[in-house]
Amino acid sequence: MRLAVLGAGAVGRAVADLAPSYGHAVTALADSSSAVVDPGGVDVGAALARKDAGDPLGESDPGDALAAEYDALVEATPTTLGDAEPGFSHLRTALERDRHVVLANKGPVAERFADLRALEADSAGDVYFEATVGGAIPACATVADLGPERVSAVRGVLNGTANFVLSRMAAEGLDYDHVLAEAQDLGVAEADPSFDVEGTDAALKCVILANLLREADCGSIEELRERALTLSDAAVEGIRDIPGSALDLAAEDGRTVRLVGEATRDGVRVGPRLVPENGTLAVSGTRNIVEIETEHAGGLAVSGRGAGGEETASAVLADVGRLPDPER
Amino acid sequence: MRLAVLGAGAVGRAVADLAPSYGHAVTALADSSSAVVDPGGVDVGAALARKDAGDPLGESDPGDALAAEYDALVEATPTTLGDAEPGFSHLRTALERDRHVVLANKGPVAERFADLRALEADSAGDVYFEATVGGAIPACATVADLGPERVSAVRGVLNGTANFVLSRMAAEGLDYDHVLAEAQDLGVAEADPSFDVEGTDAALKCVILANLLREADCGSIEELRERALTLSDAAVEGIRDIPGSALDLAAEDGRTVRLVGEATRDGVRVGPRLVPENGTLAVSGTRNIVEIETEHAGGLAVSGRGAGGEETASAVLADVGRLPDPER
Repeated sequence: MRLAVLGAGAVGRAVADLAPSYGHAVTALADSSSAVVDPGGVDVGAALARKDAGDPLGESDPGDALAAEYDALVEATPTTLGDAEPGFSHLRTALERDRHVVLANKGPVAERFADLRALEADSAGDVYFEATVGGAIPACATVADLGPERVSAVRGVLNGTANFVLSRMAAEGLDYDHVLAEAQDLGVAEADPSFDVEGTDAALKCVILANLLREADCGSIEELRERALTLSDAAVEGIRDIPGSALDLAAEDGRTVRLVGEATRDGVRVGPRLVPENGTLAVSGTRNIVEIETEHAGGLAVSGRGAGGEETASAVLADVGRLPDPER
Repeated sequence: MRLAVLGAGAVGRAVADLAPSYGHAVTALADSSSAVVDPGGVDVGAALARKDAGDPLGESDPGDALAAEYDALVEATPTTLGDAEPGFSHLRTALERDRHVVLANKGPVAERFADLRALEADSAGDVYFEATVGGAIPACATVADLGPERVSAVRGVLNGTANFVLSRMAAEGLDYDHVLAEAQDLGVAEADPSFDVEGTDAALKCVILANLLREADCGSIEELRERALTLSDAAVEGIRDIPGSALDLAAEDGRTVRLVGEATRDGVRVGPRLVPENGTLAVSGTRNIVEIETEHAGGLAVSGRGAGGEETASAVLADVGRLPDPER
C-alpha cells in the first residue's frame, strides 16, 4: 500500500522507516513545517537526515502530503483535545477522498468518535486506531476480535511515565517530586509531565476503549452521538498527591499503587489504585497491560511495551495490514 | 452464517449453544454415533437434552452432518495423532465443497499442516484454528496480526492440568502421584492423564505455533511440505519425574516449575522449566499464557483461560467471525 505519513516524531519516523519491510511504500511524509512527496516512493532516510540536520524535511508544504497519492493516511501528529485539530481535519480530508486512515493520534478517537464514524460511514475508506491505546499491545483488535458486545469491562495500566514514577517511589522510598525530577533527567517524563501524571493520557485511552464498548450497543450514528464519551466525561485522578508514605503502607500489606484506568459501558474512571505487588496489574517501567472481561471467555490479559516509536509503529502497521488491499 | 458442528463434547456443545448469540445458525450437529440436521436451524437444546438422557442426538447418521447445508464446518471432534483421522477427512470434505472450516481439533493442524494448506489453496473455503492453542487466548490471531515473519519465538504455559499439578506440589509439598490422584478426583486430570502430563498437549499447541512461523518463510506448498513440523519433531519432556524436592529447592530460590513450551523457527521444545515465582510464566490453574517475541514490538504476553467449553467455543466463534460472510 501507499502511505502518506503525517507527523515525523518518534512514531511517524518509525512508521516511515519500517513501512518497506511490511511491503508498503511511503509516498508522502510531513512534519508541521514541510513535506516530501514522491508518488514513486519517498527517500525516507534522506528526508529524516535533513530534518536531523535542522533542515526542512522536504521542499513541499505540509498540506501537499494530504493531497498526495496514497491509499492510507497515517495520522501521527501530536494528540490534541477538544476539537482534536488539526488531526481531525486531516482525517476528514482523507476520508472525503475515499482513502483509509490509521491513527496514532488519540484526539479524534477520544474527543470526536461519533464525528469520526459518521465520516467513515460516508467514505469508501476505513479508520483504524490500534496505536492510540497501549503502544504495541493489540488492545482494540482484541476487543474487536472478542466482539465488543461481549466485553463488559476493560481495565488497564496504560501510562509508562506514571508506572515509572510509582515503581521508583515504592522501591526507593522517595517522594513524588524527587522521582519526577529523576524521570525528567532520564527522558522518561516530559518537561511538562501533566498529561501523564495527571492521568489525561490514560483517560484518553480508556475513553477510546469505552467508546468501542458503547458503539456495540448503538444502532445508528445518531445513537452513537448521544452515547460516545469524551475526556470530559471521565473521572480522572492523577498520581501527584500520593505521598511516599502511602506506598510504604501498601508495601507492608503486599501491595503497591498503580495508575489504573477502567472503561465500562457506564463510563471511565482513572486513578491510583492499590494492586497486589505480584499481581498482573503491577507492571513496571513502560510496560502496559489491559485486562478484558468477557462474557464467555473469562478475563483475558494482554501486556507489552506501551510506548516507543517502533512499538507504536508496529501497531500502526498492523492496522495497515487490516485494510482491504486496493490492488486485490 | 450456517454452521455444521461436528463433535458434541464440551466445546462442540458450547459452540452450538452460543452460536445464535453470535448471529449464526446451527444447521447440523453430530457426535460419533448420530446427528441432527435441519437446514432451517437445529433445535440445539432439544438435541443435547436427548443426548444427556442417553438417547441419540438425532435420527441422522453422523455423516449426514458433513453433507448438510452449511457455510462453515466446526470440527470439534477429539484430537487424534498421525493421520489425524477422522478429523482430517471432515476438513477435506468441507473444503472440497468450498466450505469454510474452523478447527478446535488440533490433529489436522499439528500433524498435517501442509496437507491442510494444500486443500485450502484449492478451495474457496478458508481454514482457521484459533481454538487449538490456549483456549480463549487469541494466540494464533495475535501472531497473524503482528505478522508471523516478524515473530521470532512464542513461549508459553499451555496446559492447565500440568499447571494444577505443579502448583499443588509446590504449595502443599506433596509428591506427583498424590497430587495427580487428587486432580483426577476433582476432574482436573483425565483418567488417562498422559496426554497432559507427558507434554503431548502442550507440544501439539507449540507445533501449531511453530508451523505458523515456518509458513511465513515458505513461498509454496512444496516448501511448506518440507518445513512443516509434526509432533514427532518436537523435543518433549513431561512432568511425571519431577520430585517434590525439586519444587522445594526452587521455592528457596524464589522460583517454581512450570511446563513451558517454546516454538521457534528452529523447532519445538516442551519441558519443565524453572520460572520466577512471581513472573509472568508462573500462571496457575487452567490459566494459560503465551509470550510472543517480536522484531519491532518487543515481547507481548497474552493470558487467559486455556481450557473450558465456553472459553474454547469463544475462540471458535471468533474464528467464524473472521470468515468472509457469504451474504455480503
